[in-house]
Amino acid sequence: MKLYTWDTPNGQKPVLLLEEIGAQYEIVPVNILEGAQDDETFRAVNPNGKIPAMRDADLVIFESGAILLHFSEKSGRFMPQDPAARMTALSWIFWQVGGLGPMAGQWGHFARREERDAYAEKRYLDETLRLLAVLEKGLENDGWLAGGAYTIADMMAWPWANPLLGMFGASGAIGEGEFPAVRRWAEAIANREATVRGMAKLKVAIAG
Amino acid sequence: MKLYTWDTPNGQKPVLLLEEIGAQYEIVPVNILEGAQDDETFRAVNPNGKIPAMRDADLVIFESGAILLHFSEKSGRFMPQDPAARMTALSWIFWQVGGLGPMAGQWGHFARREERDAYAEKRYLDETLRLLAVLEKGLENDGWLAGGAYTIADMMAWPWANPLLGMFGASGAIGEGEFPAVRRWAEAIANREATVRGMAKLKVAIAG
Repeated sequence: MKLYTWDTPNGQKPVLLLEEIGAQYEIVPVNILEGAQDDETFRAVNPNGKIPAMRDADLVIFESGAILLHFSEKSGRFMPQDPAARMTALSWIFWQVGGLGPMAGQWGHFARREERDAYAEKRYLDETLRLLAVLEKGLENDGWLAGGAYTIADMMAWPWANPLLGMFGASGAIGEGEFPAVRRWAEAIANREATVRGMAKLKVAIAG
Repeated sequence: MKLYTWDTPNGQKPVLLLEEIGAQYEIVPVNILEGAQDDETFRAVNPNGKIPAMRDADLVIFESGAILLHFSEKSGRFMPQDPAARMTALSWIFWQVGGLGPMAGQWGHFARREERDAYAEKRYLDETLRLLAVLEKGLENDGWLAGGAYTIADMMAWPWANPLLGMFGASGAIGEGEFPAVRRWAEAIANREATVRGMAKLKVAIAG
């Protein structure tokens, strides 16, 4: 089983789950800094030319959300069994994919551009901060997004929210005491054995 | 069962599936032009303050992708049974939520702004056109995104792709002969009885 990925928020997500369930997989680095996502070999795995994607014999799957949902179903783990909690988990999974990911991604794009675009930068910073506040609300009940336990909904949001806390803290966009539930949750996930192992494995694979 | 929605691409998606499976539901219009998504009553259904969302007795679900996946599972319809085709369907579902939706949405935002921002407008137009080309590739095999039949993957992409064909055709961004598979697919979905009935029901509910 091959995981085509790179060390980005979306690229980290499958590693979190695959390590939790003890899957056997090989990381194939797709160097997006050199445009390797446009190579024909990778396009055969993902016609959209984005990491992450996976190949298991003849089976192919792309998009981090699809990968996490698939392996959660296959392993029977990290999704709530209770129907109401499952609905909540699905809600947050899609909230991350359609909201936090693309909006934080656009903020990153405009923040890194040499030519400044004050309107676009503010637009995506404001929306990303709004989404962090929504995440805070989702976590403040019992510390997890769904069913009172760590699920793939948390795994989807963590690789985006965790670095944002650091970046926005450094820039002064958020204060030290802000988002306490997100901070506790981010630290708890960062300290899980599977997270530490997976993040290290990803860095080694990418260093080549 | 209540569907909180408005006549937008994301707001149309649940209607497509609910009509196909013959669900009994009431449309509750959330007038986003007047900011009704920020009302306390709606925030209780969706903490993220975005349509669509649903309430079924005490159960709540938000995000169109979550709603479609949930009702597809509940009805046992419109997702492939074959494991490989199911992986393909999941891939396209998340591709729409993380790609086509937010990118076309950003294009719409910048195209409608009074103050022009040539860089941002081009960025999102180019990416939306790239995504339409990926959709074309996904459809050119047998006319559907997954498993050779109409699934929720198609229902997710259609409300975004269908109006884009018209808008980009009118602006000259795409030529008449471009994206033939997307055009055939868009028309086939537009002509389904459930689509016609659902779109009409949505317009009536919103006209109030």
